[in-house]
Order: sequence, then C-alpha cells, then structure tokens
Amino acid sequence: MKRRGVEALIVLGDTTLANPDLTYVVGGSLARGGIYFKRVGCKPILLTSTLDVQNARKGHVKNAFTLTDYGFEKLIVKHGQSDAYPKLILRVLKELGAEGKVVIAGRNDLAAGTELIDKLRTLGVRISGENSPTILEAARETKSSAELHEIRDVGNRTTKVIEKVLAKLRSAKRTRGGLVSDGEVATVGTVKRFISIQLAEGGLTAPEGTIFAVGPSSADPHNSGVSNAKIKEHRLIVFDIFPQSESGYWFDLTRTFVIGRPDKRAQHLYQAVQEAHDASIGILRDGLPAKLAMSQACDIIESHGFRTVRDIYDGKARELRAGFIHSLGHGVGLTIGERPYLSLQNTSSLKTGSVVTVEPGVYVPKYGGVRIEDTVHVTDKGCETLSMTRKEFELY
Amino acid sequence: MKRRGVEALIVLGDTTLANPDLTYVVGGSLARGGIYFKRVGCKPILLTSTLDVQNARKGHVKNAFTLTDYGFEKLIVKHGQSDAYPKLILRVLKELGAEGKVVIAGRNDLAAGTELIDKLRTLGVRISGENSPTILEAARETKSSAELHEIRDVGNRTTKVIEKVLAKLRSAKRTRGGLVSDGEVATVGTVKRFISIQLAEGGLTAPEGTIFAVGPSSADPHNSGVSNAKIKEHRLIVFDIFPQSESGYWFDLTRTFVIGRPDKRAQHLYQAVQEAHDASIGILRDGLPAKLAMSQACDIIESHGFRTVRDIYDGKARELRAGFIHSLGHGVGLTIGERPYLSLQNTSSLKTGSVVTVEPGVYVPKYGGVRIEDTVHVTDKGCETLSMTRKEFELY
Repeated sequence: MKRRGVEALIVLGDTTLANPDLTYVVGGSLARGGIYFKRVGCKPILLTSTLDVQNARKGHVKNAFTLTDYGFEKLIVKHGQSDAYPKLILRVLKELGAEGKVVIAGRNDLAAGTELIDKLRTLGVRISGENSPTILEAARETKSSAELHEIRDVGNRTTKVIEKVLAKLRSAKRTRGGLVSDGEVATVGTVKRFISIQLAEGGLTAPEGTIFAVGPSSADPHNSGVSNAKIKEHRLIVFDIFPQSESGYWFDLTRTFVIGRPDKRAQHLYQAVQEAHDASIGILRDGLPAKLAMSQACDIIESHGFRTVRDIYDGKARELRAGFIHSLGHGVGLTIGERPYLSLQNTSSLKTGSVVTVEPGVYVPKYGGVRIEDTVHVTDKGCETLSMTRKEFELY
Repeated sequence: MKRRGVEALIVLGDTTLANPDLTYVVGGSLARGGIYFKRVGCKPILLTSTLDVQNARKGHVKNAFTLTDYGFEKLIVKHGQSDAYPKLILRVLKELGAEGKVVIAGRNDLAAGTELIDKLRTLGVRISGENSPTILEAARETKSSAELHEIRDVGNRTTKVIEKVLAKLRSAKRTRGGLVSDGEVATVGTVKRFISIQLAEGGLTAPEGTIFAVGPSSADPHNSGVSNAKIKEHRLIVFDIFPQSESGYWFDLTRTFVIGRPDKRAQHLYQAVQEAHDASIGILRDGLPAKLAMSQACDIIESHGFRTVRDIYDGKARELRAGFIHSLGHGVGLTIGERPYLSLQNTSSLKTGSVVTVEPGVYVPKYGGVRIEDTVHVTDKGCETLSMTRKEFELY
C-alpha cells in the first residue's frame, strides 16, 4: 500500500460468497458480508451485521464491530438508505484519521459502486482506482502456508473423486461399444450424478459444474458434456473437475482418456499435449517469465503439426477453433481463474508461492480434444504437483 | 431505462457465476463472462470470449460476438492490457451511437471498476451511478414465468431433500437421548453429509452451506451447526436449507422441530413463530406495503412476550440478541437475498410476481431458536407457497 501511495484500503461486500478479496482479508465466511478498513500502519477493523460479528472475530480481524456500533441505523433514519452507507464509511475513515488516497475493493455491483464512489468523492474522500494487479490481486498471487494447506486439502479430496469415477468406469460392463453400470446404460448424465455424489461425500461443491465431454463435444473446451450422450468406447473423454471446499479455496484437475483402445489420431493428440504438459512442469519455477512457459508449450504443440493461439497474436489468424486454442494455465486460490496467468500476454515472472494450473490442450472440431491439467505450486527450485493422481490414457 | 434518462446499459463480468445481473441479461452461464450492451430502442449485443460465444447464442442475446470480432487483441497490443478494455467499450458505444448517460452494472471488483469508470469518463463517456433499486434490481424484483418455473423446480427438489432428511431422522434408533443411524451415532456432521448427498442426487448445490443447528446453537440464526455435536432428543433443531440449481436460481426453506417431545418453552417459541408465519402468509399480496408485513409479525411476536428489532428502530434497544432479531423475509431469485425485503426499512409495496421468503424467528440465547420459513410467490389475490412440505414440530 505504501509503495502505491495508498493510505487506506476498504474491502466491502454484502456476502463473502464469491467475493474473494473480502474472504481473503476477513479470513472466513460472513453470510451478510461486511466492510474491512486497513489504514497503513494500523490494525485493520471490520464492520459486520450483529448476526455475523461473533463469527467474524474467529477470522483474521480481531477488531470486529457491528454496524450498530457505528450508528448505521441512526444514519439511515437521518440521511436515508442510500446516503447512510457513504456517511458510515466516512465516519470510520475520520476515526482512523485517513485523509490520503483510499482504494475501495471487493466484488460489488458497479452501478451501485459508481454511486458510492461518487458520493464519497463529493464528501471529500480521495478514492482511487487500480490497474491490474490491484493491491489484493498482488497479495493473493502468492499463497501463505495456511492457504497452501487449504489448497492441498481440496487437491487431495479432488484426487479421491477422480479416482472413484475412473474405478467406476473401469468396473462397468462393456456392451456393444457402450457401458452399463449398476444395471443402467452409462451416460454423461449418470456419470455426472455419480461425480456430484462423490464430491458431496468429500465435502466439496462444484459451483461452476464439471466437464465430462465425450467424443466431438470434447473438442470445445467449455462444453461441459451432453447429459443424455452415452459413454462409448474408443472416444476421447475430457474430464475436467474444479471443486471448491467450504474454506473457499478451489482446485483444478483434468484427465483425458479413452475407454478401450484409442485410434491413431487420439494418440497423436495425446502425445503432443503430454509432451507440452511435461515440458511445462519441467521449467516452471520462481523467476520464470510466465509467457516463456506458454511459448514453449506452443513450440511443442506446433512441432506436432497443430496451430496455437500464437497465430492470433502474430496476426496469422483472426480466430482459432482447432489446435491449442487457450492459454497454458492460470492461478488457483479463492477463485478458479486468477494471477498468475501462463499466457502470452503476461509480461511478469512467476513467484515462489504461486499456485497455478498447467493445462495444455489440443482440439479438433467434430472429432474431439485432449487436455491434461495439474495444479502445481511454484517454488524456488521448480514446481510441486499438488494433484497426485496418475495419468492413464487407456482405461480397461 | 428511458424513465431514468439512461441511454445505454452495460453489464459486465469475468464470469456469470455469482454475477446475477449478468446471468439475468445473458440468460445462461458463461464461464468467462462477457460484456452486454443495451441501447434504448435497440437490440442488445453481447461480447464474449471465442470459447463461450456459441454457448452465449443459446441465451437471450442473439447478437453475440467474440472479443476478437471487436479487435480486442489488437487494442491490447496498441494500448496495453489496462487501457484496451475501456477502449473496447468505447468502440461498441460509438457503433451503437450511444452518447447519453451510460450505466455500468454487474458484480466486479470495485478497485478495478473505479479505474474503468474513471478511464471511460476521461474518454468522454457519461457514466452514471445508481441508487438502489438499480435498473436491474428493479427488473429482477418481479419474476417472469420462465423464472418462476425455475424457482418452482428448485423448490420441488429442495422439498424432496428436506423430506428425505426428516425420514432418515424418524427412522433412526433412539439410544439414551441420542440417535443412531446406519450403525453410526448421528451428529450434525453425519446429517450434513447426508444432506449434501441428497442435494447432489437432486442436482442441487448449496454454495452458502446448510444450517442444521441443534439446541443452544440454534439461538444464533447464522450458526450453521457444530459438526461434532450429537443429535439429541427434546432439543430445538433449526434446519435451514438454501440450495441453488444449475439454472442459477435459489430456494430457501426452514423447518424447526424437536425429536420427541418439546418442553414448554420450545412450545411457546414455536407457537409465537407459527402464528407470525401464518399471519404473514395471510396478508401478503400485490400492493401490500412491505413494512406492514414485518410490523404485523412484530406485533404478534411481541404479544407473546418477546422483543423484536422494532425496539432498535424505536430507540428502545441498541442491540438485540434475543427475540425476533432479523427481518421477516427477502426476495429470492438469482441470489438468496434481494428485493423485495420484508423489513421495517422498506418503504415500497409488494408487486405481483415477486418471490419472497416468509421467515419469522424467535431466539433465546443459550437455549435455542425457532424459525419457520417458506418461499412464496406474490400474486394479485394473495400469495402462493412454493415449498409444499408440511410443518411438523414433533418428530417421532
């Protein structure tokens, strides 16, 4: 904050759910959210509802108060609902003696957020915006050991889910190219229901769903799978699972496999992706420019005869639907897509403590795709894979 | 929009997850989000990533384009990452011929949001904030028939979960005041695992958790239950479940019960809450001032000898930990807390098409609490309960 000339940081939101910055500073979950204040050189304070304040004190901020402590209800009576909130913030800033630059963070509706910022500016508060990386994006880019512990835990639970699903598929009966499990024809829908139950058993949720895409639908990286499609032998299956635990931390893991024998084309795709994946894991470490990891993956995939997104940046293509059509990876923490990004646009270098996915993929429209993804922890010496489950391309 | 003097509405976000305004205008889920533009009198357009554009076209906005279609990558190369985004928005606004007041909505980090708004203003765009209710809050306050259909569906599935849990508890073996189910001593943790699995079987998730609070912990409305606490007979149990379906819509339902016979005090609490609940359901209808529902509930609960939050507004109490310490209800839709609020502060009237919880509660610290909650649909003639599951106070 000091280096950025920011005197006070405010993080706010009406719930901590899907408000990673607020969850990060609060260190826990608050159903009705709150307002966090941090002035440089002072201990932070937190204002929450009466219902949440006891829960709040279990988190990072010991100085937690209720909105009532700061006279919020009286401000509503005096100034009306919409002016009471900026007046409350002003009251706390004055108490903290913060008169310099103030940054307001946290995920909130921008229409109401614009109004709040304009009102605070009218009241004389020097609100300043931030280019990415914001103070909190920068802080969240490397993980503390407590955060790593949480992510590892989600990783272990995720690994168990994926292993149970693969075991279930392995034990299914093959009939005329299809699968029968528990006396029922296996479809993407039945497999997904099994995945959901395994996630629940492991205390995980998947707020963004799970990808289980068979054959042609696996050629679209964001196709989560067609529910009534039968699971068939000899087709590429992309199984991408990204659950969250009650701690708020996520994990991300993809395996691609074929039930039975893959054809030559599938083998070719898999080999290209596996090479890119292993080579990326091989070079990630503290200090590596992020885009170098991506361009190495592009080199390898191109050497196998596939196009990559580099063609767009080089002006050789306007749009790509085939080949390596996304970035190599992204950070994982209180969100499933955050800094650092392993992309051609990222001009910064990796840092010890970052947790990042490594997920090269190659896609052939109308045929299928291959993606292999691990979530890894960047260290001084290299990187440590947090998803300790083997990669099996052929399932028998 | 016209009435508010707004010429264009922009809704943006990097994912539709937990971005209800963006989900609402898009009509579906976009993993990487997008930018929605609506100029008064024109059809809306939507910009998304190449990966999401096909999915986007299945939603409300048929005019969906990729960021590449609008030259986003070239803008990044020319202006840098942080200036490319406002330049892109400016480009689309110019194409639409929108020169008047512009509102930007959608849940986003305010630090980056402030920067975006300031940059657009520097570029000459007349960005305006909004007091609550914003355009989209107002639109989302009443539900379309398609939305009602989704909420009903979540309600039916939620009802099934609650019935399975109650059946499980009923069939458990009683031993020395405790319960044994599947050969295991029943605790809040084992019941919650069972709930999670039932939710998964029903295709639901509970991103904010589930409350299953036994005895004293039920006295705190936001205590979700102590995992290793044993389920005991004769104690108040508050079971509050608020799941979300893959459509993005939520539901909210609370039952309070006692396994075996309740004591006199529990009966007294239950009677007060049940009366307030039934009387509220009895008067809700189009045109009813929202605060009247709340004050009637306060009247009834006070007549049973308990305090209510009205004491805070009347200046008779600074803070309340006992009695009816929250509001009567809140809207339910793409969030689990939205307009209309059945609170003393809400000065507006209910409208046909709103979906709202009715959830009076009375809490006695160190003893326990009672809350009875249904989610109902407001109509011209009254209200329709969407959670068709009976209320059983004594479970045998």
